[in-house]
Amino acid sequence: MRGVVMHAPGDVRVEDRPDPRIEEPADAIIRVSATCVCGSDLWPYRGVQKVEGPTPMGHEYVGIVEEVGADVTSLTPGQFVVGSFWASDNTCEICRAGYQSACVHRVPMGMLGSQAQHLRVPLADGTLVATPEVPPADLIPSYLAASDVLGTGWFAAVAAQAGPGRTVAVVGDGAVGLLAVLAARQLGAERIIAMSRHESRQRLAREFGATDIVTERGDEGVARIKDLTGGLGAHSVVEAVGTQESMMQAIHATRAGGHVGFVGVTHDVAVPGMELFWSLAHLHGGPAPVRRFLPELMRLIGDGTINPGRVFDLDLPLDQAAEGYRAMDERRAVKTLLRP
Amino acid sequence: MRGVVMHAPGDVRVEDRPDPRIEEPADAIIRVSATCVCGSDLWPYRGVQKVEGPTPMGHEYVGIVEEVGADVTSLTPGQFVVGSFWASDNTCEICRAGYQSACVHRVPMGMLGSQAQHLRVPLADGTLVATPEVPPADLIPSYLAASDVLGTGWFAAVAAQAGPGRTVAVVGDGAVGLLAVLAARQLGAERIIAMSRHESRQRLAREFGATDIVTERGDEGVARIKDLTGGLGAHSVVEAVGTQESMMQAIHATRAGGHVGFVGVTHDVAVPGMELFWSLAHLHGGPAPVRRFLPELMRLIGDGTINPGRVFDLDLPLDQAAEGYRAMDERRAVKTLLRP
Repeated sequence: MRGVVMHAPGDVRVEDRPDPRIEEPADAIIRVSATCVCGSDLWPYRGVQKVEGPTPMGHEYVGIVEEVGADVTSLTPGQFVVGSFWASDNTCEICRAGYQSACVHRVPMGMLGSQAQHLRVPLADGTLVATPEVPPADLIPSYLAASDVLGTGWFAAVAAQAGPGRTVAVVGDGAVGLLAVLAARQLGAERIIAMSRHESRQRLAREFGATDIVTERGDEGVARIKDLTGGLGAHSVVEAVGTQESMMQAIHATRAGGHVGFVGVTHDVAVPGMELFWSLAHLHGGPAPVRRFLPELMRLIGDGTINPGRVFDLDLPLDQAAEGYRAMDERRAVKTLLRP
Repeated sequence: MRGVVMHAPGDVRVEDRPDPRIEEPADAIIRVSATCVCGSDLWPYRGVQKVEGPTPMGHEYVGIVEEVGADVTSLTPGQFVVGSFWASDNTCEICRAGYQSACVHRVPMGMLGSQAQHLRVPLADGTLVATPEVPPADLIPSYLAASDVLGTGWFAAVAAQAGPGRTVAVVGDGAVGLLAVLAARQLGAERIIAMSRHESRQRLAREFGATDIVTERGDEGVARIKDLTGGLGAHSVVEAVGTQESMMQAIHATRAGGHVGFVGVTHDVAVPGMELFWSLAHLHGGPAPVRRFLPELMRLIGDGTINPGRVFDLDLPLDQAAEGYRAMDERRAVKTLLRP
């Protein structure tokens, strides 16, 4: 089969890779209907994270079940399924508490490489959620968004306790930040402040439910949030970048007793203890337990309540993956969808 | 009046200080019945925090109202009152959300020096809580504990979401850590693990409700907590020390989705972003909003349900404050009560 392999920073190729096979009785094999490039794929692409030899890429996917292992009971070939970037059993104590991304048996899907024609999904019963029927083509991008960026933005908004009566600020205007805006709106937030200086992203933020746009960053951005909230700061702040500046911007923009939900992968970030202490903010985040939210998100997509697929502004055949990466790296695209 | 003044690290004296007077119409003057030395008073005593010239000391207090300003409506001279280490109006939006330690009008009581015969309390209506009648002498230490260490330990246990069905680990066996054990017990925690290597403190921890004692620290302490929790870590961890080691011990001992409540003053602590990210723990803490809990804590003390005054193991006249500091510095005493 054809699949994306990263050889070195900036060097992404589509090559022949071995077809995946059932390896464990809990596995399923899916034919990938759509996959995409994640903001976190740009860390190795930009050389921030090491590339240890040729690496199959991708951890977001929707597809059609082709084959299931002997222990799989809830899925049958032909079903359309969505899974998240962690395979999880969905039965252990951590999964039952809603933290499937820390399942005691978790498997990182990134190791298996979803940017390909076929994909092996371990712990298929726990990991995959099927739609009642195969959805129409125009809903595919939205279901694909649920696999990571929507689920991650949603988790961030939940971690930040976005809800009725709350003012929510979102730091980061990538796909996750934009979908955290959508999530905050769905969760009933009263006021949603998107922090963005890119006009096209501001437009999408407004479409997703942002009521205010702040273009300033760092201390100036914090000052603007305080201006907009009677000097107190936002109740809920989503951090969807993962740098020291964005994390401190999020903490400083939160009122005492408020909540920061952070999902940017915090490379080279260190949170100064005294600043966290005096902020009196709650801090929660990490790799999003997308599986917790999948059934609800898929219902909202299926009935047309939300349209998160709008974050894909570049739609390419899998063979043009290199251009998909390049466009995101150069910020010409928010997020690239790839069709195997 | 007589009052404690710190001149330099290790140099604590009891001197004549001016009697406090009503300065603002919201002030009250109290005659201090009992005060005490805080673990945080040891930071300047040990030279970790700078001493900028002679500094009146103390921020914990109970006493009898002597005089009230023109705007004070809820207090009358002769009442016995407890206040916390932040004066707060208890009416602003932040106070109403339960974060009185970040009240928009807050005044740090430490600036006023409660280790003295008399004390001015700003924002008296918001800050002070009166008992129905003047309590018997044997309850004074417990009411004094409510002023800071009990309220702080309680906040830490609440921030860590201690409650029914939960396993709670407490890092730190000072007065705050020990009272976090008591709080966890009152909040209904199923299992309470006190981390302590001092026999007398272990005894008090057991008396307050600890079900297990762990003597190991750092990585070994974390490994013991994991052993005791099926490899998952505790649901709730209280951090009541404030060092890098204790903070990381707390984060690492918490299961994914669990909660760290931290109240140790985090000097020279930096939380590595990636460790926090992968821990999937909730982190909340800071200067405890003791005022939120005072009415409930005073009720539990008044009816004999809890006896937090047990943490005072040294009881001295105010004039012997220097020995009180020394004994805590040398860890001969958990906490020193001073009687003006």
